[in-house]
Amino acid sequence: MTINDQDMSLAFRQAMRSFAGNVSVITVGEGEERSGLVATSTVSLSVEPAMMLVCVNRSASSWPLFARYRHFGVNALRPDQKPIAERFSGKGGVKGADRYALGKWRAGETGAPLLQGAAVAIDCAIEDMIEWTTHSILIGRVRSVEIGDASAALVYWQGDYRPLVAENLGFSSV
Amino acid sequence: MTINDQDMSLAFRQAMRSFAGNVSVITVGEGEERSGLVATSTVSLSVEPAMMLVCVNRSASSWPLFARYRHFGVNALRPDQKPIAERFSGKGGVKGADRYALGKWRAGETGAPLLQGAAVAIDCAIEDMIEWTTHSILIGRVRSVEIGDASAALVYWQGDYRPLVAENLGFSSV
Repeated sequence: MTINDQDMSLAFRQAMRSFAGNVSVITVGEGEERSGLVATSTVSLSVEPAMMLVCVNRSASSWPLFARYRHFGVNALRPDQKPIAERFSGKGGVKGADRYALGKWRAGETGAPLLQGAAVAIDCAIEDMIEWTTHSILIGRVRSVEIGDASAALVYWQGDYRPLVAENLGFSSV
Repeated sequence: MTINDQDMSLAFRQAMRSFAGNVSVITVGEGEERSGLVATSTVSLSVEPAMMLVCVNRSASSWPLFARYRHFGVNALRPDQKPIAERFSGKGGVKGADRYALGKWRAGETGAPLLQGAAVAIDCAIEDMIEWTTHSILIGRVRSVEIGDASAALVYWQGDYRPLVAENLGFSSV
């Protein structure tokens, strides 16, 4: 990597701080082999068929599990679930199944852990993993969708978790 | 597609309403051959190297231009730029270069149109287009990054454009 590439990466990292991202816990594995991570870049790839896309760093401790279990859960958090996001971000060095200590979890049809009380919980079967330099692009077919209380969302923006609440924001008047 | 698939797509579409997405105009082309679309699913694929990922419906009128020009611009909008988002969403049947009637645009290094005054404007050279049923996954290498006034973002959530403003939200206290 040249110095210019380093400068570009720095500027890019800075720019990405200004992109608001919906906070989800991406889950994988079963029993004591469960792990997971926090993502703010979960994308709907297509609606018909219902497919999701998530980019996962190959250095993530949970990365090997995606290839082994061929599933992932997408758990979009509510603002009061911020502690769960922090736990899955590895705060305090918590790893693997210990990340599941907060919240109630059940296994979806694919086996992927789903959070009870999430704004939205989506169970996906991996159809493809595309390797791209440092990351894997996971492509998952939606096997089930559970919509909870989605009146508020947890977003990450400008370096902090923030609540997005319909009452606070009202409808956009600009 | 079976009835079950249709039900799944319907539930999935409903679930995606609860995912807040940062609103960006994705641009492509030059001169009279410019077009573009609104996306709420622009993802940072990797930081080193700086790469972006966007999923584009192959039925979008601007889709053929991505293959031809091998570039795209990502223009993250501010709340006061909501009319630009609406224009690029095809409101009123506006197509192609006519979508550029609002705002001041300049061509980036790759030729992709960049919006002056955007919260963030990123110029990308396409390195790969991965076809996936109804969509193409565009993978772009970041060529330039311009950060504007990013004190507010425009997000799409629960079926409407909404402003995300640091002053309104404060820091998350949950």
